[in-house]
Amino acid sequence: MSAALLTHPRLVTLEGGEGAGKTSAITAIREQLQARGHEVVLTREPGGTPLAERIRELLLHPQEETLQPETELLLMFAARAQHVQQVVRPALQRGAFVVSDRFTDSSYAYQGNGRGLDVDWIQDLERRAVGLRPGLTLLLDLDVRAGRARTVGRDLWPDRIEREQDDFFERVREGFRQRAAAEPQRFRLIDAAQTPTEVAASVTRALGDWLDGLA
Amino acid sequence: MSAALLTHPRLVTLEGGEGAGKTSAITAIREQLQARGHEVVLTREPGGTPLAERIRELLLHPQEETLQPETELLLMFAARAQHVQQVVRPALQRGAFVVSDRFTDSSYAYQGNGRGLDVDWIQDLERRAVGLRPGLTLLLDLDVRAGRARTVGRDLWPDRIEREQDDFFERVREGFRQRAAAEPQRFRLIDAAQTPTEVAASVTRALGDWLDGLA
Repeated sequence: MSAALLTHPRLVTLEGGEGAGKTSAITAIREQLQARGHEVVLTREPGGTPLAERIRELLLHPQEETLQPETELLLMFAARAQHVQQVVRPALQRGAFVVSDRFTDSSYAYQGNGRGLDVDWIQDLERRAVGLRPGLTLLLDLDVRAGRARTVGRDLWPDRIEREQDDFFERVREGFRQRAAAEPQRFRLIDAAQTPTEVAASVTRALGDWLDGLA
Repeated sequence: MSAALLTHPRLVTLEGGEGAGKTSAITAIREQLQARGHEVVLTREPGGTPLAERIRELLLHPQEETLQPETELLLMFAARAQHVQQVVRPALQRGAFVVSDRFTDSSYAYQGNGRGLDVDWIQDLERRAVGLRPGLTLLLDLDVRAGRARTVGRDLWPDRIEREQDDFFERVREGFRQRAAAEPQRFRLIDAAQTPTEVAASVTRALGDWLDGLA
């Protein structure tokens, strides 16, 4: 695989913390793209292929032992390499839009800012194992405590990452916001403190403007 | 984790292709080390911890889909990072010998020479996710066809890597031999065309000489 990083206009990603309303937003995005006559492939990370979903299971429910930060990063990129080659690239090649619930930005925020792993390493993995950046990334930004209040009671069995403390999620949020500030062309910051309907409307507006700019 | 690569004298690894007699050799090594009064931890890669064994299962029996070369490399190092932090380092720290059936050299040979992945990438992963090199590596070297003849009928259900063609295993063997030639201090080349008893005797002799040199 090439070590170059290509930005693909039909790859659209959603990023953000817990409770930010990604699920409703993704439904709105699909409807909007389909209404414009596009084929849409909805997918998610970690996961998106049967093997990558099995890696997701190891990541979120490792059961037996402490997952080392390095192991977490490498499993994330193993799943992503598989997802990109098996699902994302073939869909883009046949002209579809790919809408992914999380993508590489999550590794920068969670494993980089959250776990403190070297950003140079993450950049190298992105170039070598992914090679592809989204044309548009919608960041659903939300105060950590507000997000947590929304997810309380939703998950009977919170996964390994959901059980992290607030300071971890504060670093993750800050990481996402820094990335959005550094790449204003690619990122749209969505205020996820709004109601789910308002969030979906903001997402739809941002995507619509961006699509109009493409045409 | 530090990005430096430390050579540890009590980490001993066995490398080699299929049918080279690693299993008998490892038993001989354990007996020899125990006879000298050392605690010995036998382990293997990919694997060595419950989570790493689950990763091994994904690598050898992926079932649903083609495993991408990049995914294979990242899963190998994810399992290795976990193995090193959870098993290898703690055992070395309490003074034990660790004897591993395969270690990082296998990634250079199989994913580097075999799959053609960039050796710089493998070196970077070794520094970042492993940080540790064996003091002694016993390479059981065997002609590819001879090794295949020995394993025929042994495995009713050969795994994904065992199903590769001879030219793949030729590249892997050549990779191992190049590494041994480049690091004569660390490697001992064992002629695995001998009978298992002779192989075990050669291994014992090489290990004995090396241990005498340490003392």
